[in-house]
Amino acid sequence: MSKPLILICNDDGITAPGIRALVRAVRDLGDCVVVAPDRPQSGMGHAITIGHPLRVQAQHGLFGEDLPAYQTSGTPVDCVKLAVDQILHRKPDLLLSGINHGSNASINVIYSGTMSAAVEGGIEGIPSVGFSLCDYALEADFGLSADIARVVAKSVLERGLMPGTLLNVNIPKIDPAQFRGLRVSRQASAKWKENFEERHDPHGKAYYWMTGEFELLEQSEDTDEWALRNGYASVVPVQFDLTAHHALSNLQGWGMQGWKIEGGSE
Amino acid sequence: MSKPLILICNDDGITAPGIRALVRAVRDLGDCVVVAPDRPQSGMGHAITIGHPLRVQAQHGLFGEDLPAYQTSGTPVDCVKLAVDQILHRKPDLLLSGINHGSNASINVIYSGTMSAAVEGGIEGIPSVGFSLCDYALEADFGLSADIARVVAKSVLERGLMPGTLLNVNIPKIDPAQFRGLRVSRQASAKWKENFEERHDPHGKAYYWMTGEFELLEQSEDTDEWALRNGYASVVPVQFDLTAHHALSNLQGWGMQGWKIEGGSE
Repeated sequence: MSKPLILICNDDGITAPGIRALVRAVRDLGDCVVVAPDRPQSGMGHAITIGHPLRVQAQHGLFGEDLPAYQTSGTPVDCVKLAVDQILHRKPDLLLSGINHGSNASINVIYSGTMSAAVEGGIEGIPSVGFSLCDYALEADFGLSADIARVVAKSVLERGLMPGTLLNVNIPKIDPAQFRGLRVSRQASAKWKENFEERHDPHGKAYYWMTGEFELLEQSEDTDEWALRNGYASVVPVQFDLTAHHALSNLQGWGMQGWKIEGGSE
Repeated sequence: MSKPLILICNDDGITAPGIRALVRAVRDLGDCVVVAPDRPQSGMGHAITIGHPLRVQAQHGLFGEDLPAYQTSGTPVDCVKLAVDQILHRKPDLLLSGINHGSNASINVIYSGTMSAAVEGGIEGIPSVGFSLCDYALEADFGLSADIARVVAKSVLERGLMPGTLLNVNIPKIDPAQFRGLRVSRQASAKWKENFEERHDPHGKAYYWMTGEFELLEQSEDTDEWALRNGYASVVPVQFDLTAHHALSNLQGWGMQGWKIEGGSE
């Protein structure tokens, strides 16, 4: 039986410690191939590159001689598309993204390049998982995260995922001895309250740095934020059908349903 | 009573015909302010700008003397954040994004900067709507789209939207006489089959242009794609809770739920 083909990507760039930890954790589970951005692409969300062309460069030495690796000039989502169409020439059996330097729990899932790569994998029908460690430090300890990545990757290889879903796994910054386990959760309601810092350049013109404060809007025990704040790693099934199904019937009751030109002009 | 404050943005850039059509359609419904990217930002998804600062420049002449307008160097989502925090200094009563040049129906919602601006509005608690015309031509006829934008904007100002939801409105490229009405729909299952075109630069090195084919994966009459292909404009309620709630109990049955260090090592 042939080994599963595992595509590994991230958004922190191909040289980030997090992707090295991920590769080390799972490399014997299948034939691994790394396709990752040539520079940090945090906060890129589901961006794709339309207006200019992309470059791909082999970097086979980076993860050891036996592991094919490529850096691209594109976004994390571009990396997945390039990998499937131009590098692997087939759909991998598993896509793993990360390990991200910093949380992608709750609303962060939507801004995250790491998670968007996993979402793109899901759209393409590949069982996909994104991993994030709630620690922004370059020298963060990825030990626990790597153990978790291996357990989750093995589970997904064995069981697959429900169609139209992927996984968002976040790991707390915690002493492994204090770790309380994996916890299947839902995305907590939260937002970033932006707070731009205005500065002036040497010519007196204003420019703005984005900063923000994370505002958690609920404390429920079934959420990913609760899990992370209580010593668990959160596992959230994510979907890319964005339809608010619960809002359909309400909207269908509005007068505008069925509105046409004749009746609509005032 | 004071007029509602309406924030208008897009992803095609502040000079695109689509945003001019949107402003014309709704300008008397409230106090309108335009905050839009200084250049095309299609396909930017929910990208935000973290690694470098942003510029904001007043462009008050662009939409007539009485309408404040600003261009920013950021993404569509950056525009919404800058508008709320630095330009309006308060939450607008309505956010309208578009009118996009090209469809944002079905899976396109996830790649779209226009829809991501509306999603960001929704996250911030602003009733938000994105509008897209299924016609990429710069000289596209935005007449029907503008009429629809006005009707939907008035409805949302009157009724508000359910918390955690926003609207994705797509308008077919159609003779207005053939238009069959607005149709509340769900997001159709679809994907893009990428197909990169490889070329070589004058130095012989390869580069890749992203192209793709849209693959519709279902034909149900309750989907946005069906509506658009049958003469309707689609109205899809969108949410930013990406949790696949229907997959939670399945995952909770996996052995990995509750996995800890002790039991996890092999």
